[in-house]
Amino acid sequence: MRIAVIGGTGKEGYGLALGWARAGQEVVIGSRVMERAVRAAETINAAVGRGRAVGMLNREAAATGEIVVLAVPYDAHESTLRDIREEVRGKVLVDVTVPVDPERPRHLRTPPGGSATEEAQALLGSGVRVVAAFQNISYAHLDQVEASACDVLVCGDDADARQEAIKLARFLGFRGLDAGPVRNARVIEGLTILLMGINRRYKAKGAGIQITGIPEQ
Amino acid sequence: MRIAVIGGTGKEGYGLALGWARAGQEVVIGSRVMERAVRAAETINAAVGRGRAVGMLNREAAATGEIVVLAVPYDAHESTLRDIREEVRGKVLVDVTVPVDPERPRHLRTPPGGSATEEAQALLGSGVRVVAAFQNISYAHLDQVEASACDVLVCGDDADARQEAIKLARFLGFRGLDAGPVRNARVIEGLTILLMGINRRYKAKGAGIQITGIPEQ
Repeated sequence: MRIAVIGGTGKEGYGLALGWARAGQEVVIGSRVMERAVRAAETINAAVGRGRAVGMLNREAAATGEIVVLAVPYDAHESTLRDIREEVRGKVLVDVTVPVDPERPRHLRTPPGGSATEEAQALLGSGVRVVAAFQNISYAHLDQVEASACDVLVCGDDADARQEAIKLARFLGFRGLDAGPVRNARVIEGLTILLMGINRRYKAKGAGIQITGIPEQ
Repeated sequence: MRIAVIGGTGKEGYGLALGWARAGQEVVIGSRVMERAVRAAETINAAVGRGRAVGMLNREAAATGEIVVLAVPYDAHESTLRDIREEVRGKVLVDVTVPVDPERPRHLRTPPGGSATEEAQALLGSGVRVVAAFQNISYAHLDQVEASACDVLVCGDDADARQEAIKLARFLGFRGLDAGPVRNARVIEGLTILLMGINRRYKAKGAGIQITGIPEQ
């Protein structure tokens, strides 16, 4: 699968892209700065030992990817979505964005649209199937080859798109779980802020969550 | 500790009260109907084999408890809080309420005040220390003697009150975790709706959550 990671030079986006390249997927790193995209792709190829990654500008990356993952800071969320809007038409967009307030990063923020992912779906319209995923996976875990004890909660209004994101989680060694409609993104995104607080309070580095009590699939 | 459970005849409240009685705590079951409160207390005493539980009307129970647990349906939340308002002054109120919409129980609902617990804190004022806890523990787990693989996320604006609720969780065999300010209750309450959806989709009975990656305390 050819996976474009918009914002693929940031910690979270880079970690995801590296993991997918390790899993043998084609990865397209998108950035606002061509040079940074190319450098990140080269670093991934060096780490993986194969030429699996290429770097492009965000819009070009979005056009090239079969599935598009959005991993940008919240303050670049809307402008990036407007930038790649035409290129993602008909595709699945996996939104990783957490609406952190740069002024008060510890404070849970409910964005005007309820959640970043709901805002993305509203902005892109029904021609793009938006799902939330990977918000609760610390980039610290993405850098480990072994699978971590974290689940990936996936929500979005299209069931097939949710399954696509669950597949992306599996490539990284995580269990992905169908967490229902896009409206639930406000819980998944908020959980990240809550986990960041737990990290501080319990001197943890990458607190995550696992869903218990589900029969083996 | 003398724990009052307002709404202690409902599934969740009864399960919590039974667990605390089993752990040797004094339990006061509160109900709107005296007879039901007394009957629930008798059932608990028969199960535990000791006279640990008594039944009272909600307001009387709130006055008697050293710590007060509120486990009522959301549509009775505000009226119950108004009823017990004076009796809980100076105490810790542990709010277990999930703002489920009776018309659309599967639909995540954000109450006007952000969350039921935030609404409780706003209504009761700073003289009562309100915390959210136990929303994500299915009553199915409360009925088991062995501890379940679920954590209890506790949030509220008073750190000592959060510790009190963490102690209540420990009585039941659960790990309680300090999940920060009361504002985070919207995540904890929303998680319950999300878990109910996972129960349906994965044919589970009591999906729960566990926080991973925290160093042993």
